[in-house]
Amino acid sequence: MTPASAVCLFFILLVPLAPAGLALINTGLGRSRSAAHAMLAALCVMAAAAIVYACCGFAWQGFAGGAAYTLRAAGKQWNWIAAEPLFLRGHPLDGSPVSLVVLLQMLSAGLAALIPLGSGADRWRLGASCASAALLAGCTYPLFAHWAWGGGWLAQFGSNYGLGRGFLDAGGASCIQAVGGLTALAVTWTLGPRRGKYATRGLPAAIPGHDAVVVLFACFLTLLGWWGLNAAGAILFTGAEPGRAVLIAVNTLLSAAASLLAAVAITGLRFGKPDSSLCANGWVGGLAASSAACAFVTPAAAVAIGLVAGALVTVTVAYIEWPLSIDDPGGAISVHAAGGLWGVLALGIFARFPDNVSGQWLAQLIGIATLLGCVLPLTYALNWLLNRIYPQRVDPEGERQGMDLYELGAGAYPEFVTHNEEFTQQ
Amino acid sequence: MTPASAVCLFFILLVPLAPAGLALINTGLGRSRSAAHAMLAALCVMAAAAIVYACCGFAWQGFAGGAAYTLRAAGKQWNWIAAEPLFLRGHPLDGSPVSLVVLLQMLSAGLAALIPLGSGADRWRLGASCASAALLAGCTYPLFAHWAWGGGWLAQFGSNYGLGRGFLDAGGASCIQAVGGLTALAVTWTLGPRRGKYATRGLPAAIPGHDAVVVLFACFLTLLGWWGLNAAGAILFTGAEPGRAVLIAVNTLLSAAASLLAAVAITGLRFGKPDSSLCANGWVGGLAASSAACAFVTPAAAVAIGLVAGALVTVTVAYIEWPLSIDDPGGAISVHAAGGLWGVLALGIFARFPDNVSGQWLAQLIGIATLLGCVLPLTYALNWLLNRIYPQRVDPEGERQGMDLYELGAGAYPEFVTHNEEFTQQ
Amino acid sequence: MTPASAVCLFFILLVPLAPAGLALINTGLGRSRSAAHAMLAALCVMAAAAIVYACCGFAWQGFAGGAAYTLRAAGKQWNWIAAEPLFLRGHPLDGSPVSLVVLLQMLSAGLAALIPLGSGADRWRLGASCASAALLAGCTYPLFAHWAWGGGWLAQFGSNYGLGRGFLDAGGASCIQAVGGLTALAVTWTLGPRRGKYATRGLPAAIPGHDAVVVLFACFLTLLGWWGLNAAGAILFTGAEPGRAVLIAVNTLLSAAASLLAAVAITGLRFGKPDSSLCANGWVGGLAASSAACAFVTPAAAVAIGLVAGALVTVTVAYIEWPLSIDDPGGAISVHAAGGLWGVLALGIFARFPDNVSGQWLAQLIGIATLLGCVLPLTYALNWLLNRIYPQRVDPEGERQGMDLYELGAGAYPEFVTHNEEFTQQ
Repeated sequence: MTPASAVCLFFILLVPLAPAGLALINTGLGRSRSAAHAMLAALCVMAAAAIVYACCGFAWQGFAGGAAYTLRAAGKQWNWIAAEPLFLRGHPLDGSPVSLVVLLQMLSAGLAALIPLGSGADRWRLGASCASAALLAGCTYPLFAHWAWGGGWLAQFGSNYGLGRGFLDAGGASCIQAVGGLTALAVTWTLGPRRGKYATRGLPAAIPGHDAVVVLFACFLTLLGWWGLNAAGAILFTGAEPGRAVLIAVNTLLSAAASLLAAVAITGLRFGKPDSSLCANGWVGGLAASSAACAFVTPAAAVAIGLVAGALVTVTVAYIEWPLSIDDPGGAISVHAAGGLWGVLALGIFARFPDNVSGQWLAQLIGIATLLGCVLPLTYALNWLLNRIYPQRVDPEGERQGMDLYELGAGAYPEFVTHNEEFTQQ
Repeated sequence: MTPASAVCLFFILLVPLAPAGLALINTGLGRSRSAAHAMLAALCVMAAAAIVYACCGFAWQGFAGGAAYTLRAAGKQWNWIAAEPLFLRGHPLDGSPVSLVVLLQMLSAGLAALIPLGSGADRWRLGASCASAALLAGCTYPLFAHWAWGGGWLAQFGSNYGLGRGFLDAGGASCIQAVGGLTALAVTWTLGPRRGKYATRGLPAAIPGHDAVVVLFACFLTLLGWWGLNAAGAILFTGAEPGRAVLIAVNTLLSAAASLLAAVAITGLRFGKPDSSLCANGWVGGLAASSAACAFVTPAAAVAIGLVAGALVTVTVAYIEWPLSIDDPGGAISVHAAGGLWGVLALGIFARFPDNVSGQWLAQLIGIATLLGCVLPLTYALNWLLNRIYPQRVDPEGERQGMDLYELGAGAYPEFVTHNEEFTQQ
Repeated sequence: MTPASAVCLFFILLVPLAPAGLALINTGLGRSRSAAHAMLAALCVMAAAAIVYACCGFAWQGFAGGAAYTLRAAGKQWNWIAAEPLFLRGHPLDGSPVSLVVLLQMLSAGLAALIPLGSGADRWRLGASCASAALLAGCTYPLFAHWAWGGGWLAQFGSNYGLGRGFLDAGGASCIQAVGGLTALAVTWTLGPRRGKYATRGLPAAIPGHDAVVVLFACFLTLLGWWGLNAAGAILFTGAEPGRAVLIAVNTLLSAAASLLAAVAITGLRFGKPDSSLCANGWVGGLAASSAACAFVTPAAAVAIGLVAGALVTVTVAYIEWPLSIDDPGGAISVHAAGGLWGVLALGIFARFPDNVSGQWLAQLIGIATLLGCVLPLTYALNWLLNRIYPQRVDPEGERQGMDLYELGAGAYPEFVTHNEEFTQQ
């Protein structure tokens, strides 16, 4: 194992703290009567995604320079899907860059699959969320990740048309965050809002999260997880020197910090008092936005990216709830889709390369268009199809009882006295 | 410090997340009125084990190739206990492999000592659990760890009789998990069941855990802890290349994932609904089972090991409770003893070595026989003796009040209204 | 990046678990109705400190051998403040030792700034705590850290007067713990006690923490965080070999373990039952005390340092509450100021160097005198001044409602029934 691979491996070891943190955030922002369900679903989704990705996801994602299918269009060869063997055969897991890609992506696919859980809180069946995660890890995720990270056609815009270095994303603002966030949007379309959310003449009812402490504690864990994602991704997918990990860590921290403080300021000005849930969303939104550009910008630019992300998240959370009338309890669409897309764009705006290539912003815009025009319809179609075969939403009776009691047979906190009735409209 | 030592050191740094996770699991699966006691006992047990191991445990465990006492039997020299100086003298803690063994084992001994806390929940006195931990870290643990990891007679079956590579255990399925799990069994024998557990005509009462969220959150932490245990152990005790850590991490994750999904499926089929406590136990059981073989099997075999572990844990949890009538609130016996023993056996079944040695399965069976025939009686004798000198079980009044109030003078959650009376029979 | 830098980087990656742990400890030791506020304040303080430190703090802290202003006094040149460019310009963040100092110090400044939050619990306004953190990260912290770590006049006592190696502190017992703890003292002076604390004829009312489980869980996390602080600091600021990190990890663990057990024994003897809050404080006090000397003492000395720390923390907590009548809900003054100062002194007592230099104890005493005679007045003056401009204490109405409701508009646990009235005197 080379020193660069060792450095990369240790960053990968931090990655599971990202799904651990998101699981806590989703749970804490949901209801107490769905808390055990939310955590168990997170663990199951991570497990299912890891297994499915090992079975077939990696075969289709591959890696830059590996076997792949190409199409000829507009006089150029475009690489559109990898052709690796199934079940991780053919590549010894011996510390080589390819083996590190396998390990990182088994976790990243799980992280992307975990994002929609926040949006489906309190009404998404456990089995359906696992099946949806399997579709993500086995199809949507590897496909787009191949295009961006596996030497696919988005990455080829650099060599084929001279658009900067082609579509670029160090830590997964597109592949992980936006793919996960757009799937969350598709899931909310499929599931519909929680009962009682838009009961009284269309105005949304506020349904507060049940534990702000775990939500805010999770923010600390996500920092470590994102350091892992951003640095390992930058080394494996953009060929960054290991020493650049210091810049990446500084930028990731500054971006999250600026985004948090922006969210505190904006919610404080808007509602008179800062809102702790939105501030936590702001922190994670800053992390999501930092992912693409962290390896290519100055610390000052990272602060700017974070400030915009914090504003964007707080504004879109409100806009999605009303007038769009999309019920997203965990704010996953704003944090991961809006934050991630902003991160992808920000690379086009702020990134500086030693060789002063131009046109990077165009490659980034093409990536965003692909996410919105291609990944979103695909993930919606898959979830719509799944819903026809296996209804994803729990029965009305389950929503009345709470997911814990209905799907798991026991509540998360059986000894604590709760009064959760007041938040539900009959 | 060599690169291999640096890689090993960083895996060791992850290890404390395993006891942190187990402490949360034990606490969450217990009652709210014993929650502070359960966490404080975990911290004290880790502290006591680390100090005792540094004083004398390492002197008796030693390392392969170090000073040791031997016995001649059946015409061979058998190495049965190390003869290192007490108090960590004689070996500078300078990053050498021996110093890494010291650091890893100070933590591993604490982890093994922490396992029985789950079984003794709600009735084991704080002082007695610390004393029991000191006996484990100073006697049982180093003795068996010497046999398996310190060049002792179990490891010598390879060179002395050509049984594969001798008894083999990369990450501690035997030394840590089975030793801890069998001590948990000895502790439940010593303590007896909680009052109210078998009150009504022998049929056990269900006493649910008080916080499923911390239990399931802890599962994420344990993954990191086991990565540390499995990779550091494989490098230090089986001479694995650092690059093999990638295979180990993939296998550990797949084994836990498969075990979790097996537990979800089995409890879902059996009770109609998946049980979140048993699913968490399934996840940790998959980790425990992965420890022995993780460095020597393919990812597909790791999935198979996990599937069996998940089935085994869910079945044995029920069997231990009834008809065996052993009250194990945290499921430590099933998860760590059954899971660990299965992991040891699984290495004999699935491991493939480049030189195609044979007889590995027999060495593994001898190891299991030693654990059951030698370690279990020893740990039971020590705990029985301790119980004579210092009664381990709290007074009936303490069990009525709860451990927090009786032993610490204050509850864990003084501001929250709880209704824990309904789970106790007078 | 050199291997030593890579080792150092990975220790730095563990550091955020120290603020994560302290945030949970502060929150759990406070009231449930201020829990969201306590966590959000911790995140905001870390964010503000990181940004301010990146803007100007590093420019004034600098590093040994960097640009600095000097004063001539007593015939010697004394280096008193660094003269680096603002906004991290001038030093590429490329894995060089200077870049690692930047990353580590952005986190350490946040950690130091987080310590006073425990003392100001339940009455310190969010905006004021962020402003106070900015003053710490931009002024007090870099100033003292320059003196001790940046080649400043305290470090020069070795070369200028032959006092050992000059003032020495591997992991920040002075720069982080004592600076944070003394700022906590200044903050309690500025804020005054919580209402109801000294209501009945001066005798303090006991106001228990609201969640002992998160407090004790956080202790596990702090171990990892302190491993990071101690090892990274030793490598960057005292030139320790990377291999010495093993000694540092062993010493840090032993010191915390001994301190915990001392706290258990002392509180058990004194109150009849061990107190879980004080035991957690003992653990962290042992970590704080280990920081200075961890790289220079034997494991036996680390145990001794921990035993004294545990005794010191439990005794000073009581003494500060009464007769000093300082209301410090989180015990930050005892844990971090008393523990840290003892750690600084302990290096003078226990450290052994290969070249047998003498006078180290005097350099350490000069450091302690500087902290008490220079840093404490400075930080008190800054907080007093801030209080004049922007009152730091919440309105009486806010204290009556709880910080969550008054400053954030929502409680941390809206679905749980709490009875927190009984702990407040009207």
